Amino acid sequence: MPTERTRVRRRPERGHYDRATIDAILDEALLCHVGVVVDGEPFVIPTTIVREGDWVYLHGSPKNRLLTTIAAGAAACITVTLVDSIVAGRSGFGMSMDYRSVVIFAHGEVIDDPAEKNRLVYRFVEAIIPGHQVRPAKPQELNATLFLRFPIEEASAKIRDVGVVDPEEDQALDLWAGVVPLKLVAGEPRPCPALKPGTATPDYAKGWKRP
Amino acid sequence: MPTERTRVRRRPERGHYDRATIDAILDEALLCHVGVVVDGEPFVIPTTIVREGDWVYLHGSPKNRLLTTIAAGAAACITVTLVDSIVAGRSGFGMSMDYRSVVIFAHGEVIDDPAEKNRLVYRFVEAIIPGHQVRPAKPQELNATLFLRFPIEEASAKIRDVGVVDPEEDQALDLWAGVVPLKLVAGEPRPCPALKPGTATPDYAKGWKRP
Repeated sequence: MPTERTRVRRRPERGHYDRATIDAILDEALLCHVGVVVDGEPFVIPTTIVREGDWVYLHGSPKNRLLTTIAAGAAACITVTLVDSIVAGRSGFGMSMDYRSVVIFAHGEVIDDPAEKNRLVYRFVEAIIPGHQVRPAKPQELNATLFLRFPIEEASAKIRDVGVVDPEEDQALDLWAGVVPLKLVAGEPRPCPALKPGTATPDYAKGWKRP
Repeated sequence: MPTERTRVRRRPERGHYDRATIDAILDEALLCHVGVVVDGEPFVIPTTIVREGDWVYLHGSPKNRLLTTIAAGAAACITVTLVDSIVAGRSGFGMSMDYRSVVIFAHGEVIDDPAEKNRLVYRFVEAIIPGHQVRPAKPQELNATLFLRFPIEEASAKIRDVGVVDPEEDQALDLWAGVVPLKLVAGEPRPCPALKPGTATPDYAKGWKRP
């Protein structure tokens, strides 16, 4: 159920509060934008995001100001946006985008348990580039990484997928209108120049795409 | 020159404060994430952004809570992020993204002049889908649109473009590492079903790409 903050007021028909819709958007996203209040002023930074069950996870340096502010108890607003199309209407007013977004309001919990931090390292790798193999994490690397988790409780999705919605009187105009679909696609992988000789580019890198 | 807020402290070599670098990132972006403090809590929403000269412009409904909060004087943090590659290192610690981002701290000014609002309608159209023709805006449409401009003064860019940076001892491992370049690409335009018969899909829609 939406709260006062998560309820989509403008265009309420575009608001969604079911977890299946919210989770699908979170799972397709590579990154989110996190907002925090620091000294009364807003700060927004991008960072990678992973969902697992009823939580989203962020991570970064223990020196990252925004993450340490959250770790110290500050509320966060985590927003994910997937742009699906440019919508070109017959007027400036009819210009738009089709998109899917999620907003989560939550406080973050610091994850201290080294075993859980170690597990999350692999979770992030798998979420970003499924199939990629990495060596085990070193204790000093885990110590130098701050993991935070946030409950997906006060959350909502907003979806615009209706394309052009010009008023009927505009439809007689001699103007083109339509949507230009957009997609995030992967190019040819570029192997690290220092690879051990003979290391082939794996199929998971060649065939990377979003879920 | 960076201020205390805009100075990139972590990895200072990735911070850029020159307008050419900042402007190029802003001009490539279709949207930004805007953060505002409402009742002491952070709110972050996505919205389209246009740069012109020393200003960035946002627009939306005069009923949009976040924009009206800014119009009433609240500080904003405007963040733009372009993801260029997934960086797959040989450890979880070596996972990253190559990206370019800009953060602007600013207060917004409401644009009241109808002629300037009318001009901005076309500016937004041209920024989002260059070459697209629209009918003139109606006075009630201009009245129903809130335009805000923000000075690009307290702003910084952060660029990661170094690919894999695994420590030397990892390079002997039998693991693939490399970058998977990502690009936002346009698909085949889908014309509005209500187009006037005989309206061809224009080349600007077929050939859309980011600058």
